[in-house]
Amino acid sequence: MRHILRLFWPRAQYIARRKTWRTFNSPRLLFSVSPTPHRLDKPSDIMDHELEEMLAPLRLAVKEQGDIVRKLKDEKAPDIDIQRAVAELKHKKKTLEDKELEFGAKDNIDRGKMEDLLKQKFFFDQSFSIYGGVNGLYDFGPMGCAVKANILQAWRNFFVLEEQMLEVDCSMLTPEPVLVASGHVERFQDYMVKDLKTGDCYRADHLIEATFEKMLADKKVNAEKKTEIKNIMPLIDGMSMEEMGKTIVKYNMKSPLTNNDLSEPMEFNLMFSTAIGPTGHIKGFLRPETAQGIFVNFKRLLNFNQGKLPFAAAQIGNAFRNEISPRSGLLRVREFTMAEIEHFCDPTEKDHPKFNTVADLDVVLYSACNQMDGKSPQVWKLGEAVKQKLIANETLGYFMGRIQLFMLRCGIDKKKLRFRQHMSNEMAHYACDCWDAECKTTYGWVECVGCADRSCYDLNQHSKATGTKLVAEKRLQQPKDVDVVECVANKVTLGKAFKKDSKVIGEYLAGLSEGDCDRIEKELSANGESQITVGNQTFTLKADMVSVKRYSKKVHVEEIVPSVIEPSFGIGRVMYSMFEHNFHIRDGDEQRSYFSLPAVIAPYKCSVLPLSNKDAFVPFVRDLSKALTVNDISHRVDDSSGSIGKRYARTDAIAIPYGVTIDFDSLNAPHTATLRERDSMKQIRAPLEEIPLIVKDLSVGVRTWEDVLNNYPIFEQQDATKEK
Amino acid sequence: MRHILRLFWPRAQYIARRKTWRTFNSPRLLFSVSPTPHRLDKPSDIMDHELEEMLAPLRLAVKEQGDIVRKLKDEKAPDIDIQRAVAELKHKKKTLEDKELEFGAKDNIDRGKMEDLLKQKFFFDQSFSIYGGVNGLYDFGPMGCAVKANILQAWRNFFVLEEQMLEVDCSMLTPEPVLVASGHVERFQDYMVKDLKTGDCYRADHLIEATFEKMLADKKVNAEKKTEIKNIMPLIDGMSMEEMGKTIVKYNMKSPLTNNDLSEPMEFNLMFSTAIGPTGHIKGFLRPETAQGIFVNFKRLLNFNQGKLPFAAAQIGNAFRNEISPRSGLLRVREFTMAEIEHFCDPTEKDHPKFNTVADLDVVLYSACNQMDGKSPQVWKLGEAVKQKLIANETLGYFMGRIQLFMLRCGIDKKKLRFRQHMSNEMAHYACDCWDAECKTTYGWVECVGCADRSCYDLNQHSKATGTKLVAEKRLQQPKDVDVVECVANKVTLGKAFKKDSKVIGEYLAGLSEGDCDRIEKELSANGESQITVGNQTFTLKADMVSVKRYSKKVHVEEIVPSVIEPSFGIGRVMYSMFEHNFHIRDGDEQRSYFSLPAVIAPYKCSVLPLSNKDAFVPFVRDLSKALTVNDISHRVDDSSGSIGKRYARTDAIAIPYGVTIDFDSLNAPHTATLRERDSMKQIRAPLEEIPLIVKDLSVGVRTWEDVLNNYPIFEQQDATKEK
Repeated sequence: MRHILRLFWPRAQYIARRKTWRTFNSPRLLFSVSPTPHRLDKPSDIMDHELEEMLAPLRLAVKEQGDIVRKLKDEKAPDIDIQRAVAELKHKKKTLEDKELEFGAKDNIDRGKMEDLLKQKFFFDQSFSIYGGVNGLYDFGPMGCAVKANILQAWRNFFVLEEQMLEVDCSMLTPEPVLVASGHVERFQDYMVKDLKTGDCYRADHLIEATFEKMLADKKVNAEKKTEIKNIMPLIDGMSMEEMGKTIVKYNMKSPLTNNDLSEPMEFNLMFSTAIGPTGHIKGFLRPETAQGIFVNFKRLLNFNQGKLPFAAAQIGNAFRNEISPRSGLLRVREFTMAEIEHFCDPTEKDHPKFNTVADLDVVLYSACNQMDGKSPQVWKLGEAVKQKLIANETLGYFMGRIQLFMLRCGIDKKKLRFRQHMSNEMAHYACDCWDAECKTTYGWVECVGCADRSCYDLNQHSKATGTKLVAEKRLQQPKDVDVVECVANKVTLGKAFKKDSKVIGEYLAGLSEGDCDRIEKELSANGESQITVGNQTFTLKADMVSVKRYSKKVHVEEIVPSVIEPSFGIGRVMYSMFEHNFHIRDGDEQRSYFSLPAVIAPYKCSVLPLSNKDAFVPFVRDLSKALTVNDISHRVDDSSGSIGKRYARTDAIAIPYGVTIDFDSLNAPHTATLRERDSMKQIRAPLEEIPLIVKDLSVGVRTWEDVLNNYPIFEQQDATKEK
Repeated sequence: MRHILRLFWPRAQYIARRKTWRTFNSPRLLFSVSPTPHRLDKPSDIMDHELEEMLAPLRLAVKEQGDIVRKLKDEKAPDIDIQRAVAELKHKKKTLEDKELEFGAKDNIDRGKMEDLLKQKFFFDQSFSIYGGVNGLYDFGPMGCAVKANILQAWRNFFVLEEQMLEVDCSMLTPEPVLVASGHVERFQDYMVKDLKTGDCYRADHLIEATFEKMLADKKVNAEKKTEIKNIMPLIDGMSMEEMGKTIVKYNMKSPLTNNDLSEPMEFNLMFSTAIGPTGHIKGFLRPETAQGIFVNFKRLLNFNQGKLPFAAAQIGNAFRNEISPRSGLLRVREFTMAEIEHFCDPTEKDHPKFNTVADLDVVLYSACNQMDGKSPQVWKLGEAVKQKLIANETLGYFMGRIQLFMLRCGIDKKKLRFRQHMSNEMAHYACDCWDAECKTTYGWVECVGCADRSCYDLNQHSKATGTKLVAEKRLQQPKDVDVVECVANKVTLGKAFKKDSKVIGEYLAGLSEGDCDRIEKELSANGESQITVGNQTFTLKADMVSVKRYSKKVHVEEIVPSVIEPSFGIGRVMYSMFEHNFHIRDGDEQRSYFSLPAVIAPYKCSVLPLSNKDAFVPFVRDLSKALTVNDISHRVDDSSGSIGKRYARTDAIAIPYGVTIDFDSLNAPHTATLRERDSMKQIRAPLEEIPLIVKDLSVGVRTWEDVLNNYPIFEQQDATKEK
């Protein structure tokens, strides 16, 4: 089992990126392998001593391997050796992490029970089940849809509105050239093998790993072979396509279900492709992330922001990945909702004016350094981590702080949240620094939010591909003189020679670089003519058609390609983690499971329950429901039969935080009702007309339940023990 | 130019459906061709007399053709004759409607100017423009995105929350069998022809029409030929694929841009196809509508609703159609957002408990009858239209009323909104009645919302395709006795004979119909054995393995397949119509164009403008901005340079309804500021601390601007004439 599920880069992409790491030498990139020393503000408070003793040898093994990797890199050893060493490092890290999870603090979440509840109350379930279902596709039912809508609304309020971001909503269908430029067509892929008879496909690395694990457990396999396998297993992650093919042949691996022969491994791009328009000529893909829609609109957005940096754009929307074999429920799916932010800023000014609002936050950081040394994550003050350069810059740190605050608001357990830094070998080649917000679940630590400094990679790529300048103007401190070289067309002679084409030729000449101007000038003086290609036409210019002018100009601005800081949320993964972190079973009653979601996320804020189906209750229920609607409080009336306890259990199961019961005392003046809180099951009695406002204040968080408990009489009659 | 742009069914689909109309004979279907007489409550108030005189001959021509169609249908004439007559009827209707639009009430909307404003302020624009753009794909910028989010939020409040609908969020990727069952694989298509050299594609009917129009305008074409063409043109819509091919050959039609030869017409399915998973075996499509996701989840939703009918499910999401040649901006696109409701009810109980809340609404109805008679739309009270059976039932009428209320809330002009009934020949073959809410735009009348009674078609189709019962249980008034016939397996003998297969065989036997039980019983008694096929295996049963039992049983419920009433919103079309209906240019100033969007839809509710960039204004602007944020009022601070008039114009252009200006009087106690309303440009002066609440009350509609004008001193200094 893998403990780290990666949403954002599949394995092969990761390998591809790693291969390029040596060609980049930004100081930030080197940092995570040769770290500046840093001081820890607090000792780790996550692990206890007994566990640490058990883990010590594993930590040492990681540290030793980390040192080997560093040494190889320092010595500029051959790539292949470094790759193998890194693969082994990853394997050792995984072994360490598996043990940590196995023996660390136990949560006792019964995932099966939780999934039952999620299905039964139709939070979400497999799509097209009546047709046999499709792996990796899920439908959200009324409760899941409301939870998702609430998370997205909270996200929009917390990020877009509070930070005045520019939200966009771009096409999912994306023509191929855009994704060629972004690198997805070339690199967004995994290796797979096919069952030669059935055509079933398997991820090559998964298949090799599973086969080896089976062989290790097989009594018929001799000890020598097992030792050999144990030595190879750490290397699987670093294998090339050819090495995987050889391994499959050498160990005579077969298709797991049928025992049929397998194909050679092949590259498989994870994007869904389609044809746009009827001709079939416009090849397109479903976007694998929402970010590219923002980059291709950069000019419009900068213009909307009146040309000023910094600004952030945001997008909420679906993205698609054709996983070879989706698994782990909502964590690895083929269609999912993302919420992404692209913060564009001057590459030399990555300070953030609001950083001080998060500087005092405690965050758990699992730095690249700690990972290579086999150490645990550590608690830092964000301000200190940025000051010590552990986190690359204030803007990245600011967003990490905001991510943590948002996650906690959504009900993520602070003790199960950490930020893990990418090691240089797993970081996208263009990124300077990258931290993933990971949540601990029964599947291990799951990457839920990526937060990367992508430098100016994306804008540069699209600029190169389209010839469109994607830059911002920066006011210079001092105006400066620059030498200008330009080709000036003689409109008369050009017009005579090329008629209607002369306009595009003129535009082409005006846009030439200094080097091109030089070339044309030289050719004209040497041969009396020079050829240029515009679009797919070639034109021959004569000496009387163009002149090259050189002069000096005072400029007040310079053009810069902005850097991009990108927080990127996998909404389904945040949701899933939130469900796990808030799943409970009532003490002593296995049947009563429920979710303690925060009110802001809960599908309804309040339930309204008449004690029985007595007619006299009806007008009270109706009036209360109206009053709640007027106050914008989403609520659910449950006037079905069944004891009040059963109905409480039902509303708990769909995470409704507050419940109002109309009982016999409600009928007499002064009219009152009981108000129950889901997690404590405690109740108070309050005047009916005050209840909507109490619930509203509780729901939006301006009042606490403790405060309500202190100000109204406790109601004991239907307490927890009597709920059934 | 086509005046009716159809979102929901492309032309060929329409033809396909028309072909089936005769095979259905629900009383509602007959209605629109043989209408019951109905009384008009009010004379039409739409057209004036002069216009009516001019239109009279055209109306008569429609009426005469309508009568011919009716006669042919009554006589059960051959299908092909009816089709031709209907095509001619449509053509005559279109001629009438074109004239109505040409000479009817003029709006003088300058579409070019409006589109400039939409682009310039990045409400929306073509996707991937830096890559040359893709037709039919649009990106929404910050303003368009906010407007869209506000419309969707308003929709969710108005429909989902107020009506307690079950909202779902289903996969867009859809496996083929689902769309085979729904009919989309077979019927969701257009005919196209290809340029044989370039491969460019054209819609066959568009191409034939355009070529004919060109020939009619050509002096070289003789009068005889022109008469012939005029006689054929009305028939284009009714042509089969073969007839189109013959017409193209006969008139020697060529590719319009290149004059190259054309291919034969071919069918082109409008769905985007892709392969799900790596094997390529799971063929899938991007959903062409959101509705199917609801139907395949029917069982879960019914279960969530505790088995009770009626209930409505709703879904907001994107759908995709691979238009052959998208045009008309946001009106015909390849990727679009829909908001659909499926209201499931007992087919014999289509009354609606809340119908009385809309019965008194005035609606403009353009009935099928009126269309065939060449008459204008007419104003009706909704209650009367349902009473007279013009609208099939209360539930359909209720949703039409709700649709109208919602459209008006979004700023749609009541005078440019009508409901057009589908004629029997254009109605989906399974529908009993269907009305489109159409908005009048510079493109003609545009279908924005469909509202159809789809009967039980969809559930039946999915049920047939999957073998899953999609039914609800209905309590019988009186319990009744039914005869039951069932095959009962002898577990012992069956188990001995078939081992592990015996379980599925037992389940198969338990599910057999009466007819199958009879067959097996007969075969067993005749031959001593009987064969059954379960999955892809065949088993031979012996007489000692099964017995057929017959008995009588008292049942209290019966199973019914619910009917579905479907209101279906094309959000992009509603948005586009809303922009047109709210676009204005200030009198006497061509440069100042703006949108008068209602506050609930406007991207920001309020602007905050310091009179100049004087430092003393800064704290007041900051404090007011904070106070607005606390009150959840989205707002924009514009402290850029430029006169206050210029900045008002800028905020008007992005539809901000209210503007607060901090001026010199704001600096002195008692601190005040001016508040300006966008449409009237009138201003008042109010205490600064009261302003957030005034704006909030105005935005949510609990206070009118008139009321504010009456309660605060009018501020004249920066009035309209001085704004520049």
